[in-house]
Amino acid sequence: MPKVFHLLCLLLCAFVFPVTAQTLTAAYYCPPCNQRCDDNSFTAAGTCPHCGMTLITQAEAAQAKAKAVKPLTILFYLQDGVEVLDFAGPMEVFAYAGFKIATVSKTTDPILSQGILKIIPDYSIANAPQADIVAFFGGSSSAPADDTAVLHWLQKKQAPTYYFSVCTGAFVLGKAGFLDHQTATTFHARIDNLRKALPKTKVLSGVRYVDNGRVITTAGISAGIDGALHLVAKIYNKAVATQVAQYMEYDKWVPDQGLVVQPGH
Amino acid sequence: MPKVFHLLCLLLCAFVFPVTAQTLTAAYYCPPCNQRCDDNSFTAAGTCPHCGMTLITQAEAAQAKAKAVKPLTILFYLQDGVEVLDFAGPMEVFAYAGFKIATVSKTTDPILSQGILKIIPDYSIANAPQADIVAFFGGSSSAPADDTAVLHWLQKKQAPTYYFSVCTGAFVLGKAGFLDHQTATTFHARIDNLRKALPKTKVLSGVRYVDNGRVITTAGISAGIDGALHLVAKIYNKAVATQVAQYMEYDKWVPDQGLVVQPGH
Repeated sequence: MPKVFHLLCLLLCAFVFPVTAQTLTAAYYCPPCNQRCDDNSFTAAGTCPHCGMTLITQAEAAQAKAKAVKPLTILFYLQDGVEVLDFAGPMEVFAYAGFKIATVSKTTDPILSQGILKIIPDYSIANAPQADIVAFFGGSSSAPADDTAVLHWLQKKQAPTYYFSVCTGAFVLGKAGFLDHQTATTFHARIDNLRKALPKTKVLSGVRYVDNGRVITTAGISAGIDGALHLVAKIYNKAVATQVAQYMEYDKWVPDQGLVVQPGH
Repeated sequence: MPKVFHLLCLLLCAFVFPVTAQTLTAAYYCPPCNQRCDDNSFTAAGTCPHCGMTLITQAEAAQAKAKAVKPLTILFYLQDGVEVLDFAGPMEVFAYAGFKIATVSKTTDPILSQGILKIIPDYSIANAPQADIVAFFGGSSSAPADDTAVLHWLQKKQAPTYYFSVCTGAFVLGKAGFLDHQTATTFHARIDNLRKALPKTKVLSGVRYVDNGRVITTAGISAGIDGALHLVAKIYNKAVATQVAQYMEYDKWVPDQGLVVQPGH
């Protein structure tokens, strides 16, 4: 009996319990999830017994870890009247992907999202920090799009790696000049308006998001979730984005449903 | 040329512009959307040129209008730490369906949704009005679920037509006794916890929402959108819910994906 017990323990150690790279050659890792299992490694494919995420390969883990050393920062610009799901969907996605999120508005006075939700912005455009991503959303988006102070802040005070918009947030990026000679999309009922407002932009309908490399625009309201998952997949990898989608029970996600514009096109 | 212009005007008036019931026998109407086109009627099927919603028949319009005379009221209970998409998805749905939405928390002090979004609740439990629907959401939901003052408010001060929960918001409804001898669901990672916490409740996994008639619970985070659309379809009709889903570009919606518990089961 003790021998059987010993054998069982060995089997458990070899196939079930997490092991360190020092004791066995690990081939599978937990994707970065900002929990203690980030350091665990495994000898077989499967799910992490701590966080439940699907294990990834050593190469994927190294890539994700390199990018995860310093959490990416994202500024959500929330104007008075901003559509609630436009920003809340991406906020959920980016939060679970480990991004550091802050909100910004023209001032730090409370704003009313969709005429319902009272929000206190973290920053005004006068004191907002630099961010890796700056994001704009629909719902009264003509206010920031027509505000020279906001456009100046975006053009001169921010130099993000990515610009991201949901719904009619595309009008803000467009008015600031970031959609010139780019392909873009917006809320289905405002496609023609965006075409008229931005003659230098190729505006597409019937696409969930458009990724030009640095500038990503999405279709309306709920499409922001898909665009955010795409950006997570682009920055980390599809496995991490899939885990986020599964965690938030967005099992309806269809990766690659948007358009990624190839350089030179 | 003037004759051609006149003819064109007549054609436009007959087939494109909205007409009143007094001038032509209208057969199609704009679904209630709380905009000025609510009063428009049309002679042919199609979409409303103002709000973009698909026109509905006279019978559907009459039914929707009868129910829309007095907008339904819904209280969103938002505790500190509430998950942002849990409540924002249903908020988007109910707002477009014409519900009157207010937020409530234990006090009116600002709360921090998911550690990110600063929100000022409209009401505290001391001054919140009666509502047709009271809704609870996940994210630190053990705070209201274990708070006797909140449970007392829910049990004694509210008598809504419907109770609605998303994700671990089900724990609040359960602790208040509203899930006794009911079928329910919750966030996928908390199914077993809910079973242990509520021995008198049949807890299901793998279902998007469960509707017991008066009490509706949904699965995690993004499933709140589906549960809210179901409640809109139940209160109005599936055509109205479909319009809301199309408006918010939630084209992934699969109606009837949840479980409606039949009386006596």
